[in-house]
Amino acid sequence: MTRKAIFYHAGCPVCVAAEDRITEIIDRSRIDLEIVHLGDAPGRIDEAEAAGVRSVPALVVDGAALHINHGADLAALR
Amino acid sequence: MTRKAIFYHAGCPVCVAAEDRITEIIDRSRIDLEIVHLGDAPGRIDEAEAAGVRSVPALVVDGAALHINHGADLAALR
Repeated sequence: MTRKAIFYHAGCPVCVAAEDRITEIIDRSRIDLEIVHLGDAPGRIDEAEAAGVRSVPALVVDGAALHINHGADLAALR
Repeated sequence: MTRKAIFYHAGCPVCVAAEDRITEIIDRSRIDLEIVHLGDAPGRIDEAEAAGVRSVPALVVDGAALHINHGADLAALR
């Protein structure tokens, strides 16, 4: 079964570096990875927050938010 | 080519949750994942710090430290 993971970011340097590492190590044959730029898609900030995201970059897997390093607080993107 | 990634943790609940997610999504066919419990292996704290790890849980990939959520500062483990 393919699982879904969503990587939320805001285009910041910390975000880009984290995205590079995550896309590099993730098993794409099992994980359907969606990458969401919250600056471009502010309508998805609520969805990220509901999943527990407090800052970007963050990866949501199976409903759990993994905050990866710290680029910006979600509140700063609104 | 197989790459190496090292997941450093200290057995805390935040660490265990992050470890579960990371081991779940990582591509083991391409990534050689080593898991290091710094409480059990304090001799490796210096190595983690040299790789840029400031807190656990953290994943070091290609020499870059990804801090995943926040369980404990590295300094607290010494």
